[in-house]
Amino acid sequence: MTVPRRRGRPGYDLESLLAVAVEVFNERGYDGTSMEDLSRRLGIAKSAIYHHVASKEELLRLSLDRALDALFAVAGRARALRVPAIERLEYVVRGSVEVLQNQLPHVTLLLRVRGNTDVERAALERRRRFDRYVAELVRQAEKDGEIRPDLSPAVTARLLFGLVNSLVEWYRPGQDGSAASLPDLVCRFAFDGLRIRRD
Amino acid sequence: MTVPRRRGRPGYDLESLLAVAVEVFNERGYDGTSMEDLSRRLGIAKSAIYHHVASKEELLRLSLDRALDALFAVAGRARALRVPAIERLEYVVRGSVEVLQNQLPHVTLLLRVRGNTDVERAALERRRRFDRYVAELVRQAEKDGEIRPDLSPAVTARLLFGLVNSLVEWYRPGQDGSAASLPDLVCRFAFDGLRIRRD
Repeated sequence: MTVPRRRGRPGYDLESLLAVAVEVFNERGYDGTSMEDLSRRLGIAKSAIYHHVASKEELLRLSLDRALDALFAVAGRARALRVPAIERLEYVVRGSVEVLQNQLPHVTLLLRVRGNTDVERAALERRRRFDRYVAELVRQAEKDGEIRPDLSPAVTARLLFGLVNSLVEWYRPGQDGSAASLPDLVCRFAFDGLRIRRD
Repeated sequence: MTVPRRRGRPGYDLESLLAVAVEVFNERGYDGTSMEDLSRRLGIAKSAIYHHVASKEELLRLSLDRALDALFAVAGRARALRVPAIERLEYVVRGSVEVLQNQLPHVTLLLRVRGNTDVERAALERRRRFDRYVAELVRQAEKDGEIRPDLSPAVTARLLFGLVNSLVEWYRPGQDGSAASLPDLVCRFAFDGLRIRRD
């Protein structure tokens, strides 16, 4: 017995529709993308898109939540660890690089959000909460004497996540080329620096 | 004797016109900005803009050249130094942060260029030449045994300039808040890492 296949235009489930939508958002910018554009790229009528989501903004929310939920899951696991702050911080940095690798299109979209809509403002607020958690860990690690005190915790947190977020500019899946994994490389760079020490 | 002042609309020289244009490019995106938009923001007729430049693209070129000329000046001075590669590399990183601080709007625009026009493609080519020079310094510093060999030179150069370039996301002039200067902080972060070592 064979399952009847849909004829004509390809069918999409929410997941594959979202993937294409986010690709278009990242190419043209969210503001610059219309439902018309999405319908054209998907090769389906707008009504077929509305079968899955109520609006363009819902697609945006779904995508940003993918990225943010994954980051908060990392933070949640870090919080539960019974280890010093510096190790929790390393865990969060390593985990964030993994999220970026696994959810690259969604994280890319998240990093471009400028706060023009309610959905974007809500996402920015969640991002700030995540950043505050990172800054808290940096502060605690500095108190513990594990992290150099000549950088303020706020600046350190920004440099750290500036480094992590910069990966969206060049990282592409499957082009690693390096023996060690990217999360490890980023942690070594950030925590131990480039210079070889001879003490 | 008083110098007669222009009446009505404010006058612009090329410098102040460029500054406003780049501000608008960074807000709306270069592609999303028309000469009409510039004329409205400047409060002068389009013909008054054409008195200074032949096209919107010329404004783009002038801005990108500001950023790139400054970066190549740093690279040129680094080349002339008679010091080991790692010190030239530090000089380039420190100098690039200074360029970013001094030419923030132009560097911001440069980092958003995607290559849609000849001017943008030429700028991207110059950026790649600069990146190659940095990667060359990293390779040499690694050969000298000064830089950890577990990161490939290409990845190291990308992480290093990912870190530097990420500053455009949050650095705003006059809000440093830290005793040490930002170029020093970035160098310490990059070369010595966050962790305090006890060997």
